[in-house]
Amino acid sequence: MSIYTGNILRINLSYEKFNLEKLNFSWAENFYGGKGLGFRYLIEELAPKIDPLGKDNKLIFFPGIFSGTPLSSSSKLCIITKSPATQTILDSSVGGFLASEIKFAGLDGIIVEGSSIKPVFLEIINAEVKFHKAEFLWGLSTHEVEYKLRETLKDDNYKIISIGAAGENLVPYSCLTTELYRQAGRGGIGAVMGSKKLKAIAIKGTKGFKIDRPKEFLKKAQNYINKKSLNKNNLWAYTDGTPIIISMANSSGVLPTRNFQMATFRQSEKINSQSINQKLKKRKACFGCVLACGKFIEIDGVKIEGPEYETLSIAGSNCGISDLKAISLFNKICDQYGLDTISLGNTIAFVMELTERNMYDFGIKFGDQENYLKIPELVAKRKGIGEVLAQGVRAISEKYGGREFAMQIKGLEFPGYEPRGSWGMSLAYATSDRGACHLRAWPIGEEAFGDLDPFTIEGKAELVIKEQNLSALKSSIGICDFWSFDFKDLAKFLELFLEEKNTSEELFKKGERIWNLGRIFNLREGFRRKDDYPPERIFKDPLPNGKAKGKFIPKAEYDKMLSEYYNLRAWNEEGIPNLEKLKELNLETLWKIS
Amino acid sequence: MSIYTGNILRINLSYEKFNLEKLNFSWAENFYGGKGLGFRYLIEELAPKIDPLGKDNKLIFFPGIFSGTPLSSSSKLCIITKSPATQTILDSSVGGFLASEIKFAGLDGIIVEGSSIKPVFLEIINAEVKFHKAEFLWGLSTHEVEYKLRETLKDDNYKIISIGAAGENLVPYSCLTTELYRQAGRGGIGAVMGSKKLKAIAIKGTKGFKIDRPKEFLKKAQNYINKKSLNKNNLWAYTDGTPIIISMANSSGVLPTRNFQMATFRQSEKINSQSINQKLKKRKACFGCVLACGKFIEIDGVKIEGPEYETLSIAGSNCGISDLKAISLFNKICDQYGLDTISLGNTIAFVMELTERNMYDFGIKFGDQENYLKIPELVAKRKGIGEVLAQGVRAISEKYGGREFAMQIKGLEFPGYEPRGSWGMSLAYATSDRGACHLRAWPIGEEAFGDLDPFTIEGKAELVIKEQNLSALKSSIGICDFWSFDFKDLAKFLELFLEEKNTSEELFKKGERIWNLGRIFNLREGFRRKDDYPPERIFKDPLPNGKAKGKFIPKAEYDKMLSEYYNLRAWNEEGIPNLEKLKELNLETLWKIS
Repeated sequence: MSIYTGNILRINLSYEKFNLEKLNFSWAENFYGGKGLGFRYLIEELAPKIDPLGKDNKLIFFPGIFSGTPLSSSSKLCIITKSPATQTILDSSVGGFLASEIKFAGLDGIIVEGSSIKPVFLEIINAEVKFHKAEFLWGLSTHEVEYKLRETLKDDNYKIISIGAAGENLVPYSCLTTELYRQAGRGGIGAVMGSKKLKAIAIKGTKGFKIDRPKEFLKKAQNYINKKSLNKNNLWAYTDGTPIIISMANSSGVLPTRNFQMATFRQSEKINSQSINQKLKKRKACFGCVLACGKFIEIDGVKIEGPEYETLSIAGSNCGISDLKAISLFNKICDQYGLDTISLGNTIAFVMELTERNMYDFGIKFGDQENYLKIPELVAKRKGIGEVLAQGVRAISEKYGGREFAMQIKGLEFPGYEPRGSWGMSLAYATSDRGACHLRAWPIGEEAFGDLDPFTIEGKAELVIKEQNLSALKSSIGICDFWSFDFKDLAKFLELFLEEKNTSEELFKKGERIWNLGRIFNLREGFRRKDDYPPERIFKDPLPNGKAKGKFIPKAEYDKMLSEYYNLRAWNEEGIPNLEKLKELNLETLWKIS
Repeated sequence: MSIYTGNILRINLSYEKFNLEKLNFSWAENFYGGKGLGFRYLIEELAPKIDPLGKDNKLIFFPGIFSGTPLSSSSKLCIITKSPATQTILDSSVGGFLASEIKFAGLDGIIVEGSSIKPVFLEIINAEVKFHKAEFLWGLSTHEVEYKLRETLKDDNYKIISIGAAGENLVPYSCLTTELYRQAGRGGIGAVMGSKKLKAIAIKGTKGFKIDRPKEFLKKAQNYINKKSLNKNNLWAYTDGTPIIISMANSSGVLPTRNFQMATFRQSEKINSQSINQKLKKRKACFGCVLACGKFIEIDGVKIEGPEYETLSIAGSNCGISDLKAISLFNKICDQYGLDTISLGNTIAFVMELTERNMYDFGIKFGDQENYLKIPELVAKRKGIGEVLAQGVRAISEKYGGREFAMQIKGLEFPGYEPRGSWGMSLAYATSDRGACHLRAWPIGEEAFGDLDPFTIEGKAELVIKEQNLSALKSSIGICDFWSFDFKDLAKFLELFLEEKNTSEELFKKGERIWNLGRIFNLREGFRRKDDYPPERIFKDPLPNGKAKGKFIPKAEYDKMLSEYYNLRAWNEEGIPNLEKLKELNLETLWKIS
C-alpha cells in the first residue's frame, strides 16, 4: 500500500518561485519519510562546508509517512537542515497540526531554499505559494505572529509555524514554534529560517489525504491503538508526562543541578509532576493522537502549555531555580521569543558557574530568579550581556574559560540527564548525530531507570546502537517518541498498515542505514573521533551526592566504550564506516574512503 | 631625479610565498607613493564588495617617496586596505621608523595578501621573508610583542609593527602599533591584519637607500628645513603639540563634550597643553624629523607617549572625563590592546548617553572613570559588555536606538571637532574617503580657529576640496600633517628635491586625481549621496553653550553645500564624477558611468 502523494513542493526564496516535483520513490523506499528521507535529500543537495546561515542552506519539512491518517502519534513534522549551532546535520521534530496539513495539501514534504532579502512569510494553499512581505511581522513574538496571521489571512484553518526575535537575530539555539507552545527546538533551525528572512509559513490543505480501503484502515487503526497505544507503556504521557522524570532522576542521582555540579536537587519536589498536576487546567493533543500529552497549567496568572522535563531540569534545578512559576514564565518567554530552553538553560547555568568561580562576573548566580527571567529577552534581541549568552556554552567557554565544565558536545548543550549516573548516556550524547541529544538513544531508561548497572560500560555500546537505529527509523516513519516500540513491534506495525514485510533484522539495518547517512554528512564536514567526547567534568569530577555519589567515568573506560561502539558499527578508529559496511548499506557512493 | 628603488615585495600568507616585483612606474609617476599609489594598486587588485575581513583583502604598506632620506617630516608609512569599519577604501598613516626601514630594505613598498590559518609573524630582511609561527605572541599586547620579538630575534635593529588583542578579535576599530605608542589608528586595519592571523611584522633593511648626488641633497635639505620646517608654522608641534587645541577648541565652542551634547568643557584646563607640559619627561622624533612632536609624560607613575588632542577631547571631555591621569592610562591601555581611542571614546560616550536617556542601561554614565578604565580590555577581548561596545557607534545605534546622535559617518566615529561650530567641518567629515575624518580637510583651521565665518556654508565647499586635494597629495608624497604646506610650497619642494616642475594648478589636479580614485573605489562599493550625511543631531540640536551657542546646521543649508561640493568636483547629484572629469583625470577606465 502506498502512503505517498508523490509530490514535493520546492520553494525558492531568492527568486520567489516554487514548483511541484516528483518524490524520489527509490529514496522513499529506503528511507520512508521524515528524518531518513530528509537526510537523503539534504546530503544530495548540500555541498560540504556551506555556511548554515548562508543562502545555500535548505530547510526540509517532511511529515511522517502516516501523518494525516487516523493513526495515533504519527503527527510529527521533521525539519532537516544543517545546524548553525553544531555544523552537523540536524533533524528536529515538532508535533501539532502541520504534518497532517502538509499531507492534506497533497504533499509529501516541502523544501525551502535560497534566501530573501526582505522579511517574507509564505502562504501555502495546497501546491500554490504566495510570497508576502513580512515587515509587519518582523520583531513580533511567535505568539503574536500566530494571532496576527490569523487576523491577516482571515481564516483559522491555516497551520502556522514561525520564528521569534531569536531566530531573526540568528541565535544558534533559536527554534521554530507552532500552536504557541510546540517547538522544533534544538540546533538552531530558527536561525536558519531567520537567515533566510523567512518569518513564518502558513499552510492550508484542502485536498484531504486519500488512502486505499479507508474503512479497513480505520478499523485496523482503532484496534491497534486500543491494544498498543492505550496501555501502561504509554499512558504515563497522558497522566503525568515528562515531568514524572524529575522524581525518578532525583532519586536515581541523575538530575542535573547547578550546571552539572550535582545530580540531586533539594527542592525537586517543588518542580515534580505532582506539583504540576495540581495546576493542570486542560489538555491538548496533536492531530489524531490519543495520548494527548499537552498539559496547560496556570500558576498565579501564568498560563502555559508545559513545562516539560527538559525545561524543569535544565532551566530549573540546573540553574538552581526551584520556583515553578518562575520556570513556567521562563519557558513561556522562551516560547515567545523562539528559544530552546535546554540550550539557554545550560548557557545560564554555565555563566552562573563562571561567575561563582570568579572567572568572569556575568552578574548572575545560581538561584537568582530575578535576573534569570530577564535573560531570554536580552538573548533573543542580542542586547547587552545577551550578546554573550546568545553564543551558547561552547563559544562562551572558548573565550571565558571553563571548557572542562562546558556541558556541550559538538556545540549542542546537554539535556537533563547526568551521564555519570548512567554511563551509557555519555556515549548516547557523544555519538548523537546532532550533538548532545537524549532523543537518539536513551540508555538511561535501562540503566538508572531500569535494571542495567549504570556504572559500567559493559553492553552500553550495543544498547546505544540499537536505540539509535530504532529512533532513526521511528523518526523516519514518523512515530512519536512517546509511543514505545521495539523492532518487533515496528515490523508488525508496518506489516499491518503498510503491507510491507520486514524482519526485525531488516528493520535494524534500515535504521542503521539512516544512521550512517547522518554520519557520512558529518564526516564530510570534518567531524572525527575527537568530536565524540563529553567535557572533562564527566571524566574527572566525582558526583558529590545522591545515588551516584563519588561516580565519574574514567577516561580510559570511555575510550574503550567509544572504540567498541565504532567497532560494532563497523567504523574505523576515527569513526569512518568501512567499505564493506557502506556497500552493505548501499551508501558507498556517498562517501569516498580516504 | 628618481627616488624609487623600483621594487615591491609581495607576500602571500595563504601559501607562505613571496616575490619581488617591479614597481609600476607609470602609476608612481601619477600617484607618487603612500596613499595615492596605494589607492591605485588597491583599486586594481580588489574586486568590489569583497569582505574586508576575508582572505581577498590586502594590506599595502607604502612609505612616502622621501622616507629614508634626511628630509624632515617624511617618515610616514601609509597603510592602504579596505576598511572593515566602513567598507570604504582606507589609508591610515603611522610615523616612527618603519617607512625608512622599508626603503633601507631596498623596497618601495610591501603588499600582503591571502590569509594564514594559524598565527604568524613575518621577519623581513631586505627582500627575504621568513614566515614564523606566532602562537607564542597571540594574545600579547603590542608592547609585549615589541619586547618579545626583540628577545626572540636577538637584534634591536628590527622595526616592528603589530596588533593587540583588539586586532586579533577583529574589533572594527583596532589599529596597528609601532614603537609602543605610534598607531595607524583609524578604520580597523588591526582587524584586517587579525583576520589574516598576522600578529606582527619585523623588518630590517641593510641596504641603505641611495640617492643621486647625496651631498648636494643633504645640503639642500638642511637649508630648506632651517627655513621652512623650523618656523612658527610648525614649531607648535614641538612646543605644545596637538594638546594646544584643547584651549582653542574650548574657547571657540567646538570641543566635543558629553557625546557632542555640548561644545565646551568646564574642566578643560585640567586636560590642556599646559597641564600636559607640566608632566613632560622627554621627547621623541620619527626618523629624521626635526619637529620631534613625541612627548613622554609621567603622571603618578603612569608613563606614556601622548595623549594627543583627539584622545584628550574624544576620550576626555566627550566622555565627561577630566582627570589627565585617567585619560593617559586609558590611552596607554588602548595602545597596548591596539584600539583607536577616537572610535572607542565615541563609543563609550554614545552608550553613556543611551544610559542617561534610559534607552538601555550599559552601566556607565558620563564621568564614570572607574568603569571607563575597564572598557578597553573588555572591548579588545570582546568580553561581557565589550561584545556590544566592540561593534562601534553605528552598529550599536541600529540595535539600541539613538541613530540621530550616533556621531559617525559611514561607520567611522567623529574626531574631536564640533561641526556646528565650524560648518565646513560637517562637509569635511561627510565627504572624507574613509568616513568621519579630520585629516582629509580641516577647514576649522580657517573657520573657528581662523578668520572665516564658521556659521555659514559660503565658500566651504571650495575650501574643503582644496584641502582634500592637497592632503591627498601630501599623503602620497609622504609629508607629515604637522608640516604646513600649500600648493605653492609643494611645487617648490618638488622642484628642489625631485627636480620635477609643476604649477600649483597641476599639483591641484594631481591631488584631485587621487581624491577621485578614492571616490571611484567607494562608488564601486555602492556609496552614494545618502552616505555623505552627518547624523541628525548636527541638523537639529542647537549647541547649548559656548561661542557657538544656539547653532546648528539647517539641513537645507547642508544639502546646498553638498550639492555645491559635488558641482565643483564635477560630480553629479549622487556624487558620481562626470565623464569629462574622469577623462581629464585619466580615470575613465576605472569607472563605468551607469
